[in-house]
Amino acid sequence: MQIKQILLASRPQGLPDDHTFNTVKSSLREPQPGEVLVKPLYFSVDPYMRGRMNDAKSYIPPFQVGEPIESGGVGEVITSRDDQFKTGDLVMATGARPFLPWATAAIFPGTHLRKIDNSIPPTYYLGLLGVPGLTAYFGLVDIGKPKAGETVLVSGAAGAVGIIVGQIAKIMGCRAVGIAGGAEKVNLLTDTFHFDAAIDYKGNPNLDAAIAAVCPNGIDIYFDNVGGEISDAVMRHLNFFARVPLCGQIALYNVTEVPVGPRIQPLMVTRSVLMQGFTIGNYSTRFGEGVKQLSEWIKAGQIKYTETVIEGFDQLPAALLGLFSGKNSGKMVVKV
Amino acid sequence: MQIKQILLASRPQGLPDDHTFNTVKSSLREPQPGEVLVKPLYFSVDPYMRGRMNDAKSYIPPFQVGEPIESGGVGEVITSRDDQFKTGDLVMATGARPFLPWATAAIFPGTHLRKIDNSIPPTYYLGLLGVPGLTAYFGLVDIGKPKAGETVLVSGAAGAVGIIVGQIAKIMGCRAVGIAGGAEKVNLLTDTFHFDAAIDYKGNPNLDAAIAAVCPNGIDIYFDNVGGEISDAVMRHLNFFARVPLCGQIALYNVTEVPVGPRIQPLMVTRSVLMQGFTIGNYSTRFGEGVKQLSEWIKAGQIKYTETVIEGFDQLPAALLGLFSGKNSGKMVVKV
Repeated sequence: MQIKQILLASRPQGLPDDHTFNTVKSSLREPQPGEVLVKPLYFSVDPYMRGRMNDAKSYIPPFQVGEPIESGGVGEVITSRDDQFKTGDLVMATGARPFLPWATAAIFPGTHLRKIDNSIPPTYYLGLLGVPGLTAYFGLVDIGKPKAGETVLVSGAAGAVGIIVGQIAKIMGCRAVGIAGGAEKVNLLTDTFHFDAAIDYKGNPNLDAAIAAVCPNGIDIYFDNVGGEISDAVMRHLNFFARVPLCGQIALYNVTEVPVGPRIQPLMVTRSVLMQGFTIGNYSTRFGEGVKQLSEWIKAGQIKYTETVIEGFDQLPAALLGLFSGKNSGKMVVKV
Repeated sequence: MQIKQILLASRPQGLPDDHTFNTVKSSLREPQPGEVLVKPLYFSVDPYMRGRMNDAKSYIPPFQVGEPIESGGVGEVITSRDDQFKTGDLVMATGARPFLPWATAAIFPGTHLRKIDNSIPPTYYLGLLGVPGLTAYFGLVDIGKPKAGETVLVSGAAGAVGIIVGQIAKIMGCRAVGIAGGAEKVNLLTDTFHFDAAIDYKGNPNLDAAIAAVCPNGIDIYFDNVGGEISDAVMRHLNFFARVPLCGQIALYNVTEVPVGPRIQPLMVTRSVLMQGFTIGNYSTRFGEGVKQLSEWIKAGQIKYTETVIEGFDQLPAALLGLFSGKNSGKMVVKV
């Protein structure tokens, strides 16, 4: 059969652009015994993918030039030559490389796939019960160790991880404050997701004063999704024994020189601050615990969810780039 | 009786100098019932004291202009009107403010003093069994969590804390590497204290390459006593899941502007690095555990000790300043 694939054409310097991607047509062979032909239905696009475009030592191997980009995704089985799967099953990739290639169809060994439950909207597996939900859960609970009455501030608060962090903070009895870009996102956080306060960093030239105004008792947990100048402003408001789960640094992903900023170590010493960088892979042995807890909160109506769905396989590169200009509210997915 | 005191004359901008201190003579009243007259024998001078010269929110209240500087010390009882103490007892201050004022004699309520054991050299209470020893112990063991076979790198390695960190690392089966300034200190670390390797940062224009050469398997624990450019060079060699106990930032204590440097958060995310600022007061409920363990290692001959003793009450300011130019090996104390 004829398929389309989106390859990494060249490693970007700074922000990816048209030269980064290359859409090609090719033909796909028939599945062999033990293999399964899968048609992707939804792809996830995520900030960490920018890091995989560099040829750098990191926690996931880099994309290869001339090979398809890959990301989390949900697909449908078209043809199966593995007894565990039948036509129409919804599947995701599993194991050490739990990604679907950016292709209109692909062949997998059955051992690299897992079936998902049809009764839950399939995109939930890319968001609330997937990487963003588990990232929010383990980062906040395991590193942040929230105690009732504490103030939790999250940056990138209207993103896929941020909206879940704020809601878990509320469930745990904390004051939840978000920082996001634009009045629309800020309203979403307070009105729909019941954050106690939200700050529009684009509309506040004095972010420092804006933080002080809504965090009168300082900040006990700073869940950092963005880095850069927003984090510089937040750090000054950390309380003694504050915890900083470092989840992402999206403000810095497209920077080509080593970024420079105020040194944070002196403040960390005088206020006994803990900072912990993490990636969700660190918690792979505990995913079951996270999915169980998140599912219970969803069923109890304690966690709401939102996503931005872009339509069309050809829109994958644009959707990924949209993350870096803040085009999404909640999880960004592409419906193929 | 007539005494001399050394007061904080003015808050320094940058490095303290002659204008920072003021030596005055005054007369001391007689001790009242419940009070004890103490003559200091040894004062400790420590890097953290620079922070107390600023009028800033920190973990210990700042020194007050026009009041005596104070620091850890061991004194001898001259006159006691508290039954718990008699003339000749060796004492230290205790409680929330465990310091002696920089004075040739001072009066304390008996409740603010504790007796120390005469069978141990008194300066050990200012070093190995005092703040530096406990700082090394809790920072390395509680935050660093060393595992046999790991590489521990300590900056400021020839200082009071550093020499103990390296020796505890060795006891725990780790490779101990130190960074210090000058050939003499480097030789001390490898020859006397049995570090596996030591780097002279003054003699190595390319610190990055020097670290790579002696840490072929990267760094698992970076015990940071100094901050600044030395730490910048170290960070690049951290392994996945490295731990960074942040103990001091002596390179930055006398900086008047907000210090700027490479942002460390992106590396902390991709390598899942933990950084924890701490001060020894965080462990006040566990001091007994630390003293017990350190005493056992001393008795077993597993920890050696060195100190730099400066003689003369009037030398206290110069001894304190000497810390910032690296004049000490091991603990710096002043014999009055």
